[in-house]
Amino acid sequence: MDRKNCTMMCDFYELTMANGYFESGLKDQICYFDVFFRDIPDKAGYAICAGLEQVVHYIQNLHFSEEDINYLRSQNVFTETFLEYLKDFKFTGDIYAVKEGTPIFPNEPIMIVRAKAIEAQFIETFVLSTLNHQSLIATKASRIVRAAGEKSVSEFGARRAHGSEAATLGARAAYIAGCTGTSCTLTGRKFGVPVTGTMAHSWVQMFENEYEAFKHYCLMYPHQVVLLVDTYNVIKSGVPNAIKVFDEILKPQGHRPIGIRIDSGDVAYLSKKARKMLDEAGYPDCKIIASNSLDEYIIRDLEFQGAKIDSFGVGERLITSKSDPVFGGVYKLTAIEDKEGRVIPKIKISENLSKITNPHFKKLYRIFDKETNKALADLICVYDETIDESKPLEIFDPDATWKRKTLTNFYVRELLTPIFKNGKLVYDLPNVHEIRKYCLDELNTIWDEIKRFEQPHRYYVDLSQKLWDIKHEMLTNEKSKY
Amino acid sequence: MDRKNCTMMCDFYELTMANGYFESGLKDQICYFDVFFRDIPDKAGYAICAGLEQVVHYIQNLHFSEEDINYLRSQNVFTETFLEYLKDFKFTGDIYAVKEGTPIFPNEPIMIVRAKAIEAQFIETFVLSTLNHQSLIATKASRIVRAAGEKSVSEFGARRAHGSEAATLGARAAYIAGCTGTSCTLTGRKFGVPVTGTMAHSWVQMFENEYEAFKHYCLMYPHQVVLLVDTYNVIKSGVPNAIKVFDEILKPQGHRPIGIRIDSGDVAYLSKKARKMLDEAGYPDCKIIASNSLDEYIIRDLEFQGAKIDSFGVGERLITSKSDPVFGGVYKLTAIEDKEGRVIPKIKISENLSKITNPHFKKLYRIFDKETNKALADLICVYDETIDESKPLEIFDPDATWKRKTLTNFYVRELLTPIFKNGKLVYDLPNVHEIRKYCLDELNTIWDEIKRFEQPHRYYVDLSQKLWDIKHEMLTNEKSKY
Repeated sequence: MDRKNCTMMCDFYELTMANGYFESGLKDQICYFDVFFRDIPDKAGYAICAGLEQVVHYIQNLHFSEEDINYLRSQNVFTETFLEYLKDFKFTGDIYAVKEGTPIFPNEPIMIVRAKAIEAQFIETFVLSTLNHQSLIATKASRIVRAAGEKSVSEFGARRAHGSEAATLGARAAYIAGCTGTSCTLTGRKFGVPVTGTMAHSWVQMFENEYEAFKHYCLMYPHQVVLLVDTYNVIKSGVPNAIKVFDEILKPQGHRPIGIRIDSGDVAYLSKKARKMLDEAGYPDCKIIASNSLDEYIIRDLEFQGAKIDSFGVGERLITSKSDPVFGGVYKLTAIEDKEGRVIPKIKISENLSKITNPHFKKLYRIFDKETNKALADLICVYDETIDESKPLEIFDPDATWKRKTLTNFYVRELLTPIFKNGKLVYDLPNVHEIRKYCLDELNTIWDEIKRFEQPHRYYVDLSQKLWDIKHEMLTNEKSKY
Repeated sequence: MDRKNCTMMCDFYELTMANGYFESGLKDQICYFDVFFRDIPDKAGYAICAGLEQVVHYIQNLHFSEEDINYLRSQNVFTETFLEYLKDFKFTGDIYAVKEGTPIFPNEPIMIVRAKAIEAQFIETFVLSTLNHQSLIATKASRIVRAAGEKSVSEFGARRAHGSEAATLGARAAYIAGCTGTSCTLTGRKFGVPVTGTMAHSWVQMFENEYEAFKHYCLMYPHQVVLLVDTYNVIKSGVPNAIKVFDEILKPQGHRPIGIRIDSGDVAYLSKKARKMLDEAGYPDCKIIASNSLDEYIIRDLEFQGAKIDSFGVGERLITSKSDPVFGGVYKLTAIEDKEGRVIPKIKISENLSKITNPHFKKLYRIFDKETNKALADLICVYDETIDESKPLEIFDPDATWKRKTLTNFYVRELLTPIFKNGKLVYDLPNVHEIRKYCLDELNTIWDEIKRFEQPHRYYVDLSQKLWDIKHEMLTNEKSKY
């Protein structure tokens, strides 16, 4: 699925503009676009970047089929010379991106595209829908995983995802952000994410009674018994029948049960009762898994109430990011190159201050404290700037320039990595396990105050003095016109 | 994309259960499953069913590849005989479904699957994720289209959808529910949905100035000029430049502009100002299109304030159903067949009353008033019941059985249509235009009180006396056990 040709998954205006650039002599005009976002879902303090791998596959597969071109011809808006040009269309530009799994913050570029006008413009829709979707789910999953602390969270939401691709790639993003596995088999098959799952209520209903259903399951899978105990009545039927088959089937074979799962009712109350029953029956090692409309707030509450839950299966509220299902990444022109190859910054102004863009071809640094290894701030610079780690560095709030701070004893890391150069992939794509490890390691560099669920501390994303000066001058010039 | 093999897009437990049914001698056990939902997103009064076409393609393509089976083998939980059986696995059962575009209501079956246990169980995940996703978007789109009244609504949300498939199929669902078009080219190419789109802010930024950008567009596309006027300043720059190029480029060629688009700021205020300027310049026919974070409530408010908007482009709040992004369709076992082919109803009970299922193989009738042709209620019957339209019909509220009503002068229509019989497609799939027309016609049969945005009147979905009696007896029997 990740390898399918999604070339036509674009807003139609990408094509009318492409045709326009083509016919206006602008097709080879080198442009720079930034992908960035303005707000974090759930008013959170950080987001997690995901989806780059799918963007890479998209770029590599970019081409128009004969049928695509025939369809476009039927729209009666494109010139024949443009349609002819599309036959050999491919991406020949450069892409820089923040690695998947990186904690990211508003207003910083998470991807920069440098390419000829048509190519740079054209990929907008797919790039945004992919990065927006997976970053959304990774960000939500990170919160939920964090709420569960040391306990594991498995992604169970395929049936409520926005279709099969959203299920498959959403589960990938959830794993990257720290889930331990998924119920989605395709995500296991395609990416190697661990898959889990045992039985639905229908399994229990299909047999004469619950005891028979459990018994057949234990006979089939003595090594991995997780019984769903809430089809009829958790305390009066489910747990007693579970204990009975553990005793009758597993114990004589020398097997231990993995767990029971509770999918309805008051899981705080039921888990405490069930825990007691299991302990008394000699199964203190039998885990209790809960899976009923969970999210970070309910998990935190369950923990607070002392629920005896060992791991969580999280469905619709994770796979749709139900409380805030939009990640608002945008794709904005930031510069063009003149005929001598000089970078000319561009700005989009707006009555709405927050919608004014940061111009120019950029570099993005993350600054770490040498003592704690915690991230102190991100600094957006012009592409030709470098930070000298041996000297004190003054940073300032771009919205309140009198708020200044001088950093010493720090080191920096560039966050934007070259992914494509002249259309050629120059990046070794890590596998999901590597991305997941990187994500969890990077999250450790972020202060807990930033990771708080509600009213988190704001992480600083500052502009270099040089970039701020350029932006300020452009704004002054533009504003003087109206 | 709709033809791709999604066989492995299933919850892993479908496979562990399948293996279990296989090894427990239950694989050929005939089962009945219902797809139904309990609550309508946004607390709305009706939902719109969508996604059947993609389910049909899925069923037709269902098969495990060699690589799929190798992957499953690597999980070390399946028997070799089961993996061998999967090589020739296909769907050989029956499916009945409500047609796409039908207004649907809680607790009624929108799809019934009758098949051998493994087959019926296995398709659960894909069926749910597909029907849930498209019904979600169709339901939201229907509300937004309704808010816009006679004015057109175009779907613009691809970049904020949950990935490329959610964008493409979401746009399909939005069109079915009444949108006039989409920005998603792939949806146009695959389904014939009209596509629209002209320019982004980057087009305007790419040229020397706004005037040049507009001029080049008008020269390229004199027949279909829609200019985005908010890159710099709508009133001081955008609209004056638009009028200038209309005068200079279009008028001499005898063309009229289609419209201008406003994508930021206070669109109520700006549209009124722009309308006046366009009228005074001799362009009263130039439409104003608004497209900034719209949904049914904002559109209704804009209309209420007398905004001079002629059509709406709706993005993220439609394509994600932002205010309520989960459609909670479930898939529940309702019956099995014994060796003599008799249907044995099954019920899932629950502490939570609303989670108790309606047992049995069913028929679903919609009852219409002969005089007004409005839908009066839906009636869920046992499969062998028929309604005699010539006799008075007593219906009652299944939750308050003393609330009874006798209908006369009515006619009925069965809502569940055979889609597959013995694994063979027996249904002519309509195209999206036919589905859209059917949807809008059917919506006309629903009272406005049901379609109200807030606190709508509840549409009655009743059980036949026979079905209610069976359910009641089963509940009494089950409950007596605990």
